[in-house]
Amino acid sequence: MSYNTFGRLLRVTTWGESHGPAIGCTVDGVPPGLDLSEGDIQPFLDKRRPGQSRYTTQRRESDTVRILSGVFEGITTGTPVQLMIENIDQRSKDYGDIAETYRPGHADYTYDAKYGLRDYRGGGRSSARETAMRVAAGAIARKILGGGVTVRAAMVRMGPHGIDRDRFDWSVAAQNPLFCPDAVAADVWAGELDAIRKAGSSVGAVIEVEATGVPAGWGAPIYGKLDADLAAALMSINAVKGVEIGAGMAAATLTGEDNADEIVPGPDGAPAFLSNKAGGILGGISSGQPVVARFAVKPTSSILTPRRSIRKDGSATEVMTKGRHDPCVGIRAVPVAEAMMALVLADHMMLHRAQCG
Amino acid sequence: MSYNTFGRLLRVTTWGESHGPAIGCTVDGVPPGLDLSEGDIQPFLDKRRPGQSRYTTQRRESDTVRILSGVFEGITTGTPVQLMIENIDQRSKDYGDIAETYRPGHADYTYDAKYGLRDYRGGGRSSARETAMRVAAGAIARKILGGGVTVRAAMVRMGPHGIDRDRFDWSVAAQNPLFCPDAVAADVWAGELDAIRKAGSSVGAVIEVEATGVPAGWGAPIYGKLDADLAAALMSINAVKGVEIGAGMAAATLTGEDNADEIVPGPDGAPAFLSNKAGGILGGISSGQPVVARFAVKPTSSILTPRRSIRKDGSATEVMTKGRHDPCVGIRAVPVAEAMMALVLADHMMLHRAQCG
Amino acid sequence: MSYNTFGRLLRVTTWGESHGPAIGCTVDGVPPGLDLSEGDIQPFLDKRRPGQSRYTTQRRESDTVRILSGVFEGITTGTPVQLMIENIDQRSKDYGDIAETYRPGHADYTYDAKYGLRDYRGGGRSSARETAMRVAAGAIARKILGGGVTVRAAMVRMGPHGIDRDRFDWSVAAQNPLFCPDAVAADVWAGELDAIRKAGSSVGAVIEVEATGVPAGWGAPIYGKLDADLAAALMSINAVKGVEIGAGMAAATLTGEDNADEIVPGPDGAPAFLSNKAGGILGGISSGQPVVARFAVKPTSSILTPRRSIRKDGSATEVMTKGRHDPCVGIRAVPVAEAMMALVLADHMMLHRAQCG
Amino acid sequence: MSYNTFGRLLRVTTWGESHGPAIGCTVDGVPPGLDLSEGDIQPFLDKRRPGQSRYTTQRRESDTVRILSGVFEGITTGTPVQLMIENIDQRSKDYGDIAETYRPGHADYTYDAKYGLRDYRGGGRSSARETAMRVAAGAIARKILGGGVTVRAAMVRMGPHGIDRDRFDWSVAAQNPLFCPDAVAADVWAGELDAIRKAGSSVGAVIEVEATGVPAGWGAPIYGKLDADLAAALMSINAVKGVEIGAGMAAATLTGEDNADEIVPGPDGAPAFLSNKAGGILGGISSGQPVVARFAVKPTSSILTPRRSIRKDGSATEVMTKGRHDPCVGIRAVPVAEAMMALVLADHMMLHRAQCG
Repeated sequence: MSYNTFGRLLRVTTWGESHGPAIGCTVDGVPPGLDLSEGDIQPFLDKRRPGQSRYTTQRRESDTVRILSGVFEGITTGTPVQLMIENIDQRSKDYGDIAETYRPGHADYTYDAKYGLRDYRGGGRSSARETAMRVAAGAIARKILGGGVTVRAAMVRMGPHGIDRDRFDWSVAAQNPLFCPDAVAADVWAGELDAIRKAGSSVGAVIEVEATGVPAGWGAPIYGKLDADLAAALMSINAVKGVEIGAGMAAATLTGEDNADEIVPGPDGAPAFLSNKAGGILGGISSGQPVVARFAVKPTSSILTPRRSIRKDGSATEVMTKGRHDPCVGIRAVPVAEAMMALVLADHMMLHRAQCG
Repeated sequence: MSYNTFGRLLRVTTWGESHGPAIGCTVDGVPPGLDLSEGDIQPFLDKRRPGQSRYTTQRRESDTVRILSGVFEGITTGTPVQLMIENIDQRSKDYGDIAETYRPGHADYTYDAKYGLRDYRGGGRSSARETAMRVAAGAIARKILGGGVTVRAAMVRMGPHGIDRDRFDWSVAAQNPLFCPDAVAADVWAGELDAIRKAGSSVGAVIEVEATGVPAGWGAPIYGKLDADLAAALMSINAVKGVEIGAGMAAATLTGEDNADEIVPGPDGAPAFLSNKAGGILGGISSGQPVVARFAVKPTSSILTPRRSIRKDGSATEVMTKGRHDPCVGIRAVPVAEAMMALVLADHMMLHRAQCG
Repeated sequence: MSYNTFGRLLRVTTWGESHGPAIGCTVDGVPPGLDLSEGDIQPFLDKRRPGQSRYTTQRRESDTVRILSGVFEGITTGTPVQLMIENIDQRSKDYGDIAETYRPGHADYTYDAKYGLRDYRGGGRSSARETAMRVAAGAIARKILGGGVTVRAAMVRMGPHGIDRDRFDWSVAAQNPLFCPDAVAADVWAGELDAIRKAGSSVGAVIEVEATGVPAGWGAPIYGKLDADLAAALMSINAVKGVEIGAGMAAATLTGEDNADEIVPGPDGAPAFLSNKAGGILGGISSGQPVVARFAVKPTSSILTPRRSIRKDGSATEVMTKGRHDPCVGIRAVPVAEAMMALVLADHMMLHRAQCG
Repeated sequence: MSYNTFGRLLRVTTWGESHGPAIGCTVDGVPPGLDLSEGDIQPFLDKRRPGQSRYTTQRRESDTVRILSGVFEGITTGTPVQLMIENIDQRSKDYGDIAETYRPGHADYTYDAKYGLRDYRGGGRSSARETAMRVAAGAIARKILGGGVTVRAAMVRMGPHGIDRDRFDWSVAAQNPLFCPDAVAADVWAGELDAIRKAGSSVGAVIEVEATGVPAGWGAPIYGKLDADLAAALMSINAVKGVEIGAGMAAATLTGEDNADEIVPGPDGAPAFLSNKAGGILGGISSGQPVVARFAVKPTSSILTPRRSIRKDGSATEVMTKGRHDPCVGIRAVPVAEAMMALVLADHMMLHRAQCG
């Protein structure tokens, strides 16, 4: 039972609002004996940080993380690790005009419907600012996984534009502000996104996240399946509307012959799969192949074009967003996706160890 | 922490193997005072039951459910409801030859990798037979939701063939064995599936599941979001590889202008949304619109065409399935999808009541 | 969130009413690869079974347990183990007269107050019959713990009569129907209990349960402390009103000097404690000393002497119990206590392994 | 699955070490719409705060709490409430000498045995300092319970000295630094405690905590029984070795006749119980009577008298505590007990509402 907690054995509880004094999280269940300092976490936060390029919101946050507990003389102690980031650039006045208005595509109406009130400043709790703490916690999850598991993500679609899979290069993704793994597409997208940004419009995206080095055997059927947990983890990211594992939605169009990942004897007696339609998961358990997931991020709802909406009192109005925003919120979802993948895997590593020794 | 338990407050724990003596589940947290008898559950099981048409496996199971606890004089008492179905037509000999072989696309290898052994008879625990108990539990969830909420599902794609949305008719879906809501497509698909079945091949599918009558306010952000819970619920169904809410993966291709579900004042002061790209969920909370999800089911991995694989000892072999199987396992996923939607909603109804009174 | 589930990683979900068709439980999280058959479980059930001596209720139940899932060819598979016992000797007519009356000391009134109705036959869900499933699950927990950990319990007080600690002998406890570890007291108690039984009266008891061989390091502070989990486990047994660890309530009367368990270097460098006021638990974590708990069981509320009470309609009445009952329900709590201790320890063994490797 | 989280629906996750920069907690699941400010919480912290009288440790902490999230314009929003207290008077040097030594009765050895290392400054995570956050969270629980439920605690035994029940007066307990409800005993105890303090010794205590105004029907059998949850809650408080409900351990010495709480028709048709041996709980569900629990706190292990112990390297040593300490740690457990009672009750209020409407 957890509203704001993620994970089974490695449990992350986040708190904080977009424009409150701070945001933070407790990471509980961290194994003892790991080296951990702010320096292990900050680089991942910097990757997600707003204002890094002209393609993301110009809110200026240093996102400087502090470790407040659970680490003694640079080593985790097995007690809860508390991470905190103080909010700096809050500019609440930008958002004052939405106090009484429900922005289409945002959670304004539903929070009010559920709770009877909401902290409307910057979206309050529903803001993607919460994902900073996921990224911070994800850095700890990587520590737990150790060097054998590599988790990385890239943006493989921006609006109508996909990538050329033959040009897929992780090192390219690491070097452009759109995290696009196709150098040619990266340039095209950059130009397009400039135009979209200037027009005050926005565009959706698809992110792909992959983990290599995951051993066979992680995942807890029936209701703790690795893919089910990944689906929840990725769908819980702001603005996500679809999640795929391996072949994903396209699996529906295949025949059994095409979909079968044939197996041949591999080195060391381990199976060698000839394809990975399954995305590295069979029956909810990792197969030793790369774990591959994708998800769609809807276009940012904050746009300059007026949209019809209603006020809290039910009267009609129009909404257009004047404040800072991301023209493609999918960009900043890339490091968040890596964090969620790392968290799910670390959790299942521990879960597997608990039951199967 | 739950391997075989689903839900937060309405908790379903399933047990049983495909060819064990019985399968069952405990439904805990059921509100007291509801009328409940086997007659409320059996019709849903009958809808999912194998051998209903030539399109599903010919295993003959009556799937007769018994209520063993939690109901007194026809009324739920608030104590756990135990449901059990005895397995009848087990034909274990059909599966003896897979004891030492890993079937591509199945969980054979991963179960062995995780647990060191597996009950290989009919797939053991990894068999879709487990979903019978989800359907049974789902019938109780419908009781909890009451008459105001309607949950129904249809198959909207079979392999390469989609439906014509203009012909979408729920009553049509209820009357053909493929649960296809488009009468024209239903006929075409039936012919195609006959050919696929005779060829010993298989095909994937997309299922759409919808709930109407859900009030605004259900869902528990951040990590108990209604869409995140739905994603896990649907991804946990056997053979599912992708889950979408509302516009789904296609949201990535939209602009902010197109994606916005504009709002106008509706009757009784409630908001009237002009579209439903969001699939009835904003910020993880229901908006009062229909909750709409879709998911892709991969083609059955059991096919007549030989596929390369390995044995338990690592040696190479070929696998072809001679036993009974479903040419399109998506068909029987339709009632399962309804059950999972009903279970998630009933759980969130209770969760909302707990926190928000 | 679990009404009817016990444990964190080793999870036991029980179901069933005293006079329903059957009772059962699902044991989830069992490690794979353990030998397990009904023969491993039945002896513990036989120890708890009613009608074993003249000191326990004369209800005749064979309490024959069946394993319905989770075991393949005599080995646990890591999937949920379902255990079931059919109820045989239900004699519901004995209890018909309590349908409209609230028996003092029973849960009749509170179940009605909570749920609005109750299965009054034999106490329904509130009956101690549920503890049979705890005992069955406890047998599996012992398997998980392995031979290094020994769990045993004894009755150390019956009403006003304690034991002489100098005569404490576990082998004596194993051989008398009152599980009394003091041979002299066992005889005295037997005589007293005969008188109490004939008078239709009842008497309370204190049970002591001990686990030896528990390594240092089990327990999960702060809210999964080994002693806190034991306290909940033991307090959840029917009729228990107090739980003690080590020195227990008497710790309040000690000085710091007397209460300190001094430590000296032991063999193999392990600490040797000179006393065990702590009951083997410090800071919620096992110390390697024997884990020792005690709990008080109130006298059976079902007695022949009329007691004032009210009917469901609020009117005054008197209640006296004519049906079968236990003059000292503490006797049958002995095997239940062992089961709960074993379950808590096995759970914490797995929990420790998950976090600390 | 929660190491550092307490509660089912109202979930409190605490973090922080005795001598780290801060301690804090997240209170998740708080209903929206409650007035809440630091002013609602601080008085309870002040009651527990060290250095309030000469009978408690002289560590000087202002224990000033800050609300960092979950409250907007003075009203709870339904999102997680983060509370934080900065540590001020840490004096780590006092504790440097215990880095390599295991103090008898403390968690030093077991933390090292479990985690392989520990933050030894002031006991680190195992310090009773953690209970400050319980008290803070408890203040929120009281808000949730509302004015109809009153929770209060008193110290009813100090070492060998009990109270005279005939002189029990809650207003007396509120006015002396020992929270003793018997004015005569309060004076005697004060003198005794002065002597104990000067001698560098310590003494145990029994605390009684009571809730009035609890309606019948709270509690979730079988494994979420109100008394089982209370037992875990109270046993999880530092230094607690025994927990009693109602008649407690003494129930073992009673006959069924004496133990029965007879019932007569009360005003408004509600039952009127003639005694409260049950402590307000029957079958794990509240009966509408006062809920009454007691627990024993062992004497502070930190004393001036040298006690034998071992060092981390296994060698023999002696330990005596020179730093600040509480001669009777039971005193400060009084507000903690109230907080735990309030938290358990608020949780069960919500749990009951979820299932039973």
